Amino acid sequence: MVQPGSIKGRYTIPARQGLAVPLAAGQGLRVINSSGTQVVDTWAFPDGDPAAFLSLEHCREVLQRIVFEPGDTLIDNRYRPLVTIAADTSPGGHDTLIAACSRAMYVHAGAGDDHANCADNLTAALAQHGRTMPFTPSPWNLFMLAPVKDGRTIDYVRPTSAPGDYVEVTAETDCLMAFSACPDDVYPTNGGDGTPQDAHVEVLM
Amino acid sequence: MVQPGSIKGRYTIPARQGLAVPLAAGQGLRVINSSGTQVVDTWAFPDGDPAAFLSLEHCREVLQRIVFEPGDTLIDNRYRPLVTIAADTSPGGHDTLIAACSRAMYVHAGAGDDHANCADNLTAALAQHGRTMPFTPSPWNLFMLAPVKDGRTIDYVRPTSAPGDYVEVTAETDCLMAFSACPDDVYPTNGGDGTPQDAHVEVLM
Repeated sequence: MVQPGSIKGRYTIPARQGLAVPLAAGQGLRVINSSGTQVVDTWAFPDGDPAAFLSLEHCREVLQRIVFEPGDTLIDNRYRPLVTIAADTSPGGHDTLIAACSRAMYVHAGAGDDHANCADNLTAALAQHGRTMPFTPSPWNLFMLAPVKDGRTIDYVRPTSAPGDYVEVTAETDCLMAFSACPDDVYPTNGGDGTPQDAHVEVLM
Repeated sequence: MVQPGSIKGRYTIPARQGLAVPLAAGQGLRVINSSGTQVVDTWAFPDGDPAAFLSLEHCREVLQRIVFEPGDTLIDNRYRPLVTIAADTSPGGHDTLIAACSRAMYVHAGAGDDHANCADNLTAALAQHGRTMPFTPSPWNLFMLAPVKDGRTIDYVRPTSAPGDYVEVTAETDCLMAFSACPDDVYPTNGGDGTPQDAHVEVLM
């Protein structure tokens, strides 16, 4: 007999690439920092509304916090519950303030016009599930640390997670979750020597 | 002879309503808190790219700050300069974290399904200039205070501006600026007794 909480499926988010995974209401999902050094840009999109998305500016408004933690229900841009954070074995502090990296960001940083990036990874991952978005929603940057000092200044520091640390969410509605193992090697976004690594996703029963 | 910096046009943003004003590269614009109590949600859209918008998550990334101040150049979602902050006579601290109020927000707050709101004001103001957006970009909430304490928690406090305080920007490119005199009477967003008031915009030579 399958126990509640046991693993139904395990997926790799290859280094520098994206992945999207459908989730049914009530299902759990773990985003695993297998290396301990990898930032995973994370999005969620409820089924049945092509203009709805996990909206960090709406979550910050309702939760009255710039970081989210276990017990928090994250909402879409219509204030509808999308996922609840069930567990977080990492030190937390996952960034909610910084844009997904994009082709334009790497051009702006002098890193060329063909650098892998989270915005294009999102587009490709959504396309595999027949979905498009007309813009890149702000990502929930799991394991990324961009702490705010003195109520004003953003610092960039490398992740402090341990290998295998994970964030677990439970879906509040049928939705598509999307992820990008951030290809950033310009900012101190990813940990270790900054080399992007594989991350993993487990879908629970 | 008209002096540089003199006023070319003055517009009212009526309480609870929106306004959009085209700006040419090099022109200045002042957003005036005429009552001292009014929050003005502010957006900017460069000419010639229907998918581009003033992006707070990109500004925060590059400026490494959650509040913007005179001298800062604000950018669009492609890292292109849009406006530079030329002056700010208010106490500053203009919020960059909280979503525009919307029909859904007032429904969520139990304030009915026909409440005036900044998201619909933006849509109407853009339409008067033949422009649409497929979503509501995060607004630069002028005169709104939502300070971050201890690097985590957002507080909501009423504006501390004086009547006539203004923020002045200079356009870095031809663009359309849009404003909403926030209709919020649910959160302590607007000052005084929370009643929305007229605000004003001056376009400089």
